[in-house]
Amino acid sequence: MSRLDEIIEKIEPLDEEAMKLARERQDNLTKPQGSLGVLEELSIKLAGIQRTSRPKIENKVIFTMAGDHGVVEEGVSAYPQEVTPQMVYNFLRGGAAINVLARHAGARVVVVDMGVAADIEAEDGLVKKKIAYGTRNIAREPAMTREQAVEAIEAGIEVFEKEFKRGVDIAGVGDMGIGNTTPSAAICAAITRRAVEEVTGRGTGIDDEAWKRKVAVIKRALKVNRPDPSDPIDVLAKVGGYEIAGIAGVALAAAAHRVAVVIDGFIATAGALIAGEIAPLAREYMIASHLSQEAGHRAMLEHLSLKPLLNLNLRLGEGTGATLGICLVEAGVRILNEMATFAEAGVSERIE
Amino acid sequence: MSRLDEIIEKIEPLDEEAMKLARERQDNLTKPQGSLGVLEELSIKLAGIQRTSRPKIENKVIFTMAGDHGVVEEGVSAYPQEVTPQMVYNFLRGGAAINVLARHAGARVVVVDMGVAADIEAEDGLVKKKIAYGTRNIAREPAMTREQAVEAIEAGIEVFEKEFKRGVDIAGVGDMGIGNTTPSAAICAAITRRAVEEVTGRGTGIDDEAWKRKVAVIKRALKVNRPDPSDPIDVLAKVGGYEIAGIAGVALAAAAHRVAVVIDGFIATAGALIAGEIAPLAREYMIASHLSQEAGHRAMLEHLSLKPLLNLNLRLGEGTGATLGICLVEAGVRILNEMATFAEAGVSERIE
Repeated sequence: MSRLDEIIEKIEPLDEEAMKLARERQDNLTKPQGSLGVLEELSIKLAGIQRTSRPKIENKVIFTMAGDHGVVEEGVSAYPQEVTPQMVYNFLRGGAAINVLARHAGARVVVVDMGVAADIEAEDGLVKKKIAYGTRNIAREPAMTREQAVEAIEAGIEVFEKEFKRGVDIAGVGDMGIGNTTPSAAICAAITRRAVEEVTGRGTGIDDEAWKRKVAVIKRALKVNRPDPSDPIDVLAKVGGYEIAGIAGVALAAAAHRVAVVIDGFIATAGALIAGEIAPLAREYMIASHLSQEAGHRAMLEHLSLKPLLNLNLRLGEGTGATLGICLVEAGVRILNEMATFAEAGVSERIE
Repeated sequence: MSRLDEIIEKIEPLDEEAMKLARERQDNLTKPQGSLGVLEELSIKLAGIQRTSRPKIENKVIFTMAGDHGVVEEGVSAYPQEVTPQMVYNFLRGGAAINVLARHAGARVVVVDMGVAADIEAEDGLVKKKIAYGTRNIAREPAMTREQAVEAIEAGIEVFEKEFKRGVDIAGVGDMGIGNTTPSAAICAAITRRAVEEVTGRGTGIDDEAWKRKVAVIKRALKVNRPDPSDPIDVLAKVGGYEIAGIAGVALAAAAHRVAVVIDGFIATAGALIAGEIAPLAREYMIASHLSQEAGHRAMLEHLSLKPLLNLNLRLGEGTGATLGICLVEAGVRILNEMATFAEAGVSERIE
């Protein structure tokens, strides 16, 4: 059995009994029942994921997966491709948004080269899983071979499992890759079967003309490659990206190891979408941190049956939104663990 | 000049120059311009409030103001009045939701007895500003005299100013008081001139019959007392509450001292509404943390021209939502202060 098949087989449904016990505890804490809304729901979901009525969140890890995209030669991005490795250096030196927000959330950042189109000089902290120097141009040919797609997902699994040995109570997934809203929109269109125009956004900030070009490029990519919507690995190989595959791998491994995975924005959700098609049970371990400004994000979240926690007009990626989502999950879990019950506090219950 | 008039006079517009400099810095940080959406806007607002392009958030303080309401004798709440002092003890012992979430946000909690209908035995940490043992029943007579209303607002100002000497970079305001969604809905109806049915919710969780009774009680309170919508202190005195007055005082004092004030839910927003009518410039210092499940909250926020940061079906109060809002403001400010610029990080800028 392949490494991927092994992981898929390990994923189980959430623990209903732990969730029931967590719900009962929430209902006995000194507040009107349900008055902390989504925070309560998150704590109960974490109980189901961790299989205990008292889940814990101590080790928080953001996986920021980087990769390049051959399709940038079609002029689909507002930034040059050299920005991908430059930003990887920025992550490693601690100057990027994800570093700042991960510090704020008390999370460590694991930066992974899944397929950057440049050699990144060895620096502390970079996890090297380069499958290739970027994908091929999806407007002309498949992004990668099927073997490379599986290899990339398995690389994501390995990255997660190595960190899991150090301790991971909650994971966040994010991306870096110039041009990667184009393959993400292609994946979205292929799997949710929405119109390309509906799911294509402005990425890092392209104008009307570039947007029309991007839509045409995605349509061409789908026509040239004919990804099979019933075969998520085929979709990933034909119109995806290495960082997207790595995110899918982390999401699958997290589910297999009973760890909640907080999804960032549009690109991370494309990875989650692939993971959810490969192993539908993995969806139960996912938490959508925010609704991106990027068109198409809502369609992917609906397909995954996930409701985003935040709507703050974010469109950066890197895992930035995931850090904010982790803060909210931790808030819910702390409520469950640290609040006094009515009996403990000597507070009267409601009038019946 | 009264203490209240002095504070009102001190409130100035935000510093446009500091906001311009903060905007420029945000635009030079290593991310597509505007890609952190609301986080960027919050950092710029903080720059305007603190009059510096590099605002700081170190000292975070939640003011939780408690008071009782004579109107509970009309059967408008699902909980007995004794819960107000019981919850104050819970706050002082650290077992309530606000304690947990304030710890999570790194904030200290200042608990204030503004008008609880019981003596609270001296415990460390309680600020005693009791104006009266609860308000009078607004369904029959004014909640308090005009003098008491001013005294209560000034008590809130004093509470803020005492803490300000210890250091307050950002304030949150919250409430505790059985029955206090009733006066808050009355204030909302009086000032926003919406229909009582539209702005009356289910508080801690009343049924249909109790809701109808609550609507009738609020209508009676408005008819009996005839609060003058153009005179916010008259509205507060006739249909308000002591904790609501205290919150208004904190909001005014925060604005006068150039401190951002993060508003919790329905009751805290009623206090903010009073403050904003007393001194319209004070609104510029307010940040709405979340949209409460309580009907009428949206109407008050629209009246204040505030957009809530979160929508998590919260309806607890105490300042709980404000702690989550403070986390987001701090995230924005840290982005502004800690991220590398394109030049510092050697990252290429967008293709023009």
